[in-house]
Amino acid sequence: MLLSLNTATVRKQWNLAQMIDGCVRHGITGISPWRDQIAVLGLKETKKRIDAAGLTVTGVCRGGFFADKDWKSDNLRAIEEAHELGAPALILVVGGMPGHSKDLAGARQKIKDSIAEILPVARKANVPLAIEPLHPMQVTRAAVNTLEQALDMCDALGPGVGVAVDAYHVWWDPKLESQVKRAGKRVLGYHICDWLPATRDLFNDRGMMGDGIIDLPTIRNYIEAAGYAGFQEVEIFSELDWWKRDPDEVLRTCKERLALC
Amino acid sequence: MLLSLNTATVRKQWNLAQMIDGCVRHGITGISPWRDQIAVLGLKETKKRIDAAGLTVTGVCRGGFFADKDWKSDNLRAIEEAHELGAPALILVVGGMPGHSKDLAGARQKIKDSIAEILPVARKANVPLAIEPLHPMQVTRAAVNTLEQALDMCDALGPGVGVAVDAYHVWWDPKLESQVKRAGKRVLGYHICDWLPATRDLFNDRGMMGDGIIDLPTIRNYIEAAGYAGFQEVEIFSELDWWKRDPDEVLRTCKERLALC
Repeated sequence: MLLSLNTATVRKQWNLAQMIDGCVRHGITGISPWRDQIAVLGLKETKKRIDAAGLTVTGVCRGGFFADKDWKSDNLRAIEEAHELGAPALILVVGGMPGHSKDLAGARQKIKDSIAEILPVARKANVPLAIEPLHPMQVTRAAVNTLEQALDMCDALGPGVGVAVDAYHVWWDPKLESQVKRAGKRVLGYHICDWLPATRDLFNDRGMMGDGIIDLPTIRNYIEAAGYAGFQEVEIFSELDWWKRDPDEVLRTCKERLALC
Repeated sequence: MLLSLNTATVRKQWNLAQMIDGCVRHGITGISPWRDQIAVLGLKETKKRIDAAGLTVTGVCRGGFFADKDWKSDNLRAIEEAHELGAPALILVVGGMPGHSKDLAGARQKIKDSIAEILPVARKANVPLAIEPLHPMQVTRAAVNTLEQALDMCDALGPGVGVAVDAYHVWWDPKLESQVKRAGKRVLGYHICDWLPATRDLFNDRGMMGDGIIDLPTIRNYIEAAGYAGFQEVEIFSELDWWKRDPDEVLRTCKERLALC
């Protein structure tokens, strides 16, 4: 599998134009840009530069956050952007519970209903929606927390919805193998990084592949057995380490460590 | 449901003798002592004082840690202590992956095999073993991470094994209601505290009931519907807050907040 850069990995150091150039310099052939970065560079300019660089767009991050007030208009814009960039999927970080709400079941119902509402538009635009289950410790950011739960939603919603499998979020799951198999062709993206045994923060302390305890080759085998033949997309949120380093060092290290994945 | 004090809640402030006195002073009628505290006070003296105080033992913490070298002798001692104290269950914190191992499946198999090995002794001593699934973010401390996984183990192991349901570890689980129902009479303990929306640490930043976003009354309903009629055991690991406070204030607050659970 080829390597793609999820641009969150160097978000503190570079703008999107620099990230595109960085991918070319390091022989990274895929990119998954975040929408706030696209907004700064401009959608047309983003498309122009990605095309000129010969990069494959492996996803657009992100739609979702269905608990937000302007969720619908924002998601419709996201679908349009993913369409313009020819992305294989719009990644949905589905949002959690607003404020200090305790209504987890209600939040989950709202997520499902909201996806159903935007799905006809996504289908028409030929943009598959990828529900990304987030680690249960991030339930306030996304109330879909297992692959099984995401796939239950997919089953209910019908064609045009799949899942993004991020090893960091799902590696602990006893049902990982069976649920990846169940997902089959609905695996729309595969994200990698590593779980640090001494994790210091619930959101922004992900490790570089090889620095932690996730058995990445085994998960890759599950994903490939399910029929996924896309890119491995490296996505590292790392306030205390990788976001502080020289971004060329970050990309070089991602490239080197791919041998461990 | 009555209130029990899991002694981890004031472990930094008091020894076990002081905790027993504290329970009496605050009208808390149950206690679940940790074995390191029992070791300091002595098993006989512990039993004598708990009996004199008229407290109900709601569990002994903990057996498990099956990845440790001396796991077997330690667990056999734990069974004996739980038996001596008349505990309704020995709580198993099952242990994670030793060192920087990446073999999660192997760790899980070892846990199951080890419980099978000590189970005949536990049955003979009439001490039920309670597998406690820990939050997936604590997988390095316990590689059983959902109620469903714990119950699959229980099904395979047969009589004498059940589960401890800690709201903090399982509240996020989309299958919580169905799995508590499945557990039925195998619910051997029910632990409470709260999930802080801005959790600062993966292990020791639990909140006091009412300070977070867990819908505790709903989970209590699940537990009671399953047939559990024991105590609600408050267990708060809180390096940055409750472990720093006056322990009488901690116990008073636990008592007051029970109305929210």
